[in-house]
Amino acid sequence: MKKSFGSKTLIYPTPVWCVGSYDRDGKANVMTIAWGGICCSKPCCVTISLRKATYTYDGIMERKAYTVNVPSEKYVKEADYFGMASGRSVDKFAATGLTPVRSDLVDAPYVKEFPMILECKLVHTFELGLHTQFVGEIVDVKVDEDLLDTNGLPDMKRIGPVLFAPEGRGYYGVGSLLGMGFSIGKAFQKSSE
Amino acid sequence: MKKSFGSKTLIYPTPVWCVGSYDRDGKANVMTIAWGGICCSKPCCVTISLRKATYTYDGIMERKAYTVNVPSEKYVKEADYFGMASGRSVDKFAATGLTPVRSDLVDAPYVKEFPMILECKLVHTFELGLHTQFVGEIVDVKVDEDLLDTNGLPDMKRIGPVLFAPEGRGYYGVGSLLGMGFSIGKAFQKSSE
Repeated sequence: MKKSFGSKTLIYPTPVWCVGSYDRDGKANVMTIAWGGICCSKPCCVTISLRKATYTYDGIMERKAYTVNVPSEKYVKEADYFGMASGRSVDKFAATGLTPVRSDLVDAPYVKEFPMILECKLVHTFELGLHTQFVGEIVDVKVDEDLLDTNGLPDMKRIGPVLFAPEGRGYYGVGSLLGMGFSIGKAFQKSSE
Repeated sequence: MKKSFGSKTLIYPTPVWCVGSYDRDGKANVMTIAWGGICCSKPCCVTISLRKATYTYDGIMERKAYTVNVPSEKYVKEADYFGMASGRSVDKFAATGLTPVRSDLVDAPYVKEFPMILECKLVHTFELGLHTQFVGEIVDVKVDEDLLDTNGLPDMKRIGPVLFAPEGRGYYGVGSLLGMGFSIGKAFQKSSE
């Protein structure tokens, strides 16, 4: 039997991504979100949703750019802090000792210590209700080169991204490799076609 | 040092969600996506991006509704198959032996065997390029009641959702609990404020 929870933002998993932006005065800010995802393959775009009340909202509207920074497990406390404090009243980089790096490609800072960074140029803004959805074109993806696998791609386990459980509020790491996409499902193709 | 990958849809993690819809003739279909996420808290909305070429695209445009079904690890092969085959040429429920259930709330079917289901009413359609982004209002969230934790919320580890690594194409399970949100970051608040 299934239990109904009603209309809730309750789905597993959601990502833990830290959004980097500059404010009007050029101060680097970073904010953690779980409401976001890839939304287009051509052009390559990633979407994030923010409340208008956030300081990051103002920064993105001002600069038309943001970065999406993937924290590794070891930075889960910093990521949590980035989601609690406001850049309006505190310098979150200074508070955590992490390093903002000015992007050469977009008008936004990224987090040097985080293993995977997307530099994004704002291309759409959609008003959905409490949240505004930003769509950013991914100009570049940067990954720590010592965390690549033998195929030259980012190694999921070594990047060590973090998941979030809405409502319950737990952060989780990534578990085992279960199989390869566009491959393990072929068993059903054979029997059906 | 960071290595540049250029403009790619490369970020970790992305979810593995199976989108349920009816076609014009009322045949239940299901398709796996990794491009999606929660996008608004009020109203509660979840976004999914689909190419126009997919059969599910036609179904959602016709019925203005979809479900988002979270497969558990044990159904990762079925989920992979749902992303490879097209409902235009095959009945994916019949091929896998899974059961479509007609939603009482929206004009779309859900996957009975999957532990977590969102029933969604289409509220926005945004053309982004290769992908169309659908925004669905979450009318109800249904979860297998034997997979709830002691607080009555879906237990992340027992739900066992699946992650996807774009480019490398690996599927991964969920690992350990790392800490609680809006809590473990407080250490930095004390030192900075």
